[in-house]
Amino acid sequence: MKVRRSERLVDMTQYLLEHPHTLIPLPFFAKRYNSAKSSISEDLGIIKRTFSLRNRGILETIPGAAGGVRFIPEISETQARVIVNELCERLSEKNRLLPGGYVYLSDLLGEPELLRKVGQIIAAKYKDQKIDAVMTVATKGVPIAQAVSYQLNVPFVIVRRDSKITEGSTVSVNYVSGSSQRIEKMELSKRSLKKGSRVLVVDDFMKGGGTVNGMKGLIEEFEAELVGITVFAESNFSGCRVIDEYHSLLCVEEVDVQTKTISVIPGTYFNK
Amino acid sequence: MKVRRSERLVDMTQYLLEHPHTLIPLPFFAKRYNSAKSSISEDLGIIKRTFSLRNRGILETIPGAAGGVRFIPEISETQARVIVNELCERLSEKNRLLPGGYVYLSDLLGEPELLRKVGQIIAAKYKDQKIDAVMTVATKGVPIAQAVSYQLNVPFVIVRRDSKITEGSTVSVNYVSGSSQRIEKMELSKRSLKKGSRVLVVDDFMKGGGTVNGMKGLIEEFEAELVGITVFAESNFSGCRVIDEYHSLLCVEEVDVQTKTISVIPGTYFNK
Repeated sequence: MKVRRSERLVDMTQYLLEHPHTLIPLPFFAKRYNSAKSSISEDLGIIKRTFSLRNRGILETIPGAAGGVRFIPEISETQARVIVNELCERLSEKNRLLPGGYVYLSDLLGEPELLRKVGQIIAAKYKDQKIDAVMTVATKGVPIAQAVSYQLNVPFVIVRRDSKITEGSTVSVNYVSGSSQRIEKMELSKRSLKKGSRVLVVDDFMKGGGTVNGMKGLIEEFEAELVGITVFAESNFSGCRVIDEYHSLLCVEEVDVQTKTISVIPGTYFNK
Repeated sequence: MKVRRSERLVDMTQYLLEHPHTLIPLPFFAKRYNSAKSSISEDLGIIKRTFSLRNRGILETIPGAAGGVRFIPEISETQARVIVNELCERLSEKNRLLPGGYVYLSDLLGEPELLRKVGQIIAAKYKDQKIDAVMTVATKGVPIAQAVSYQLNVPFVIVRRDSKITEGSTVSVNYVSGSSQRIEKMELSKRSLKKGSRVLVVDDFMKGGGTVNGMKGLIEEFEAELVGITVFAESNFSGCRVIDEYHSLLCVEEVDVQTKTISVIPGTYFNK
């Protein structure tokens, strides 16, 4: 039975949103709805226009026999700025200040709506690049990695500081923790990353950049390639940072333990 | 400017999918599209029918002044069975067998499409219950918790075995690891769970049930309430399990280190 346009639009929208960055051949939809390819093309035109009007993403059409349609999630700079400004306010809340000048983030990194938006913002930065995997370090980086992975539709891998028997053989590197200058160790399951993979590194917080630098080392050990680095928040570190090319959504500029004030501004994400 | 039906359908579908389990008043959509409430009602009827036909979920309409529409993600038993059967096959792959009879899962727990489906399957079990938070233990439970949290649209909290300075004050419990009979400790940031919260516990793997039992203890310490327990996989443990009420998607029935065979069947999820 033929499916009506209105129903096709609802189902196709859902299908496209759940399969971002994936080439879907037109015959797939034609068969799914028992409809002519010309009708499917018209539907896709409507969806394309709506996504574009609402700044939700690009619907790329690839012509030819091997062609099809591909949904690339996007977010406008204006929308991203609104979200980042809201996050600045939330991060500046007095009660987030922990002993030692640390900032409490765990509640934010457990909110699904916030994570979805953060995933959209970070993924948008890399939408035109080929990425095979998202890498992060346990534990607090995981929600960020998963959120980005959902948008780019590529797997994420978790680097650990403690080896577990359930990871099988691992490859490990030593790295210097940028802020404390201690030597630490991190490892990744050997089978989790293929040689030549193009890797995006994400993390929740960057101080001296030691952890991110460790991940760079691991990527080299795996003979993989680093595509970029984006962290949820960075702190305005006075010393020498071991990482120079990265993006951050937020920047904790100053923490005053006396007056319990945290000053947070947008990070380097919007820099041209 | 008025927005046409076709465009409304695309945008509403997207909006509803990104806001599951959330009551959205009709005037919100009427304003968003500059359209009459009667048109919006008709749109919602189309979306409701399509979601229902495709077994994608229920669109609940609540009449009256305080009413609106709420999308409740679902998955049919048939669809869930197909996914679980596929997972049984993947889990039985010979090269997953690790020394000590452990099964390698980390790759599966990093695949966005699989996680999305696992989230849908687990969330569907609790769709009629009030849930305030999803709880899991670091590290491998996190992807499951986040996937479920996306579907239920409630936050997730991460219990840790190692205390971190970035968690602030914590509440800790001791628990007996079911399989090794050792006493271990786990803790949760004090501010992460409110008194009286209704909590769903999820984890990647359950052997003796000690870890899950530890989380039950923590829930009591927080004066919160346990709604249910679902694990991605359980192993057919021969000893006495310390947990009796739970669901599992998969059950590792037998592991033969000699012949390198892993036998996996669907878990208790489908039991009536």
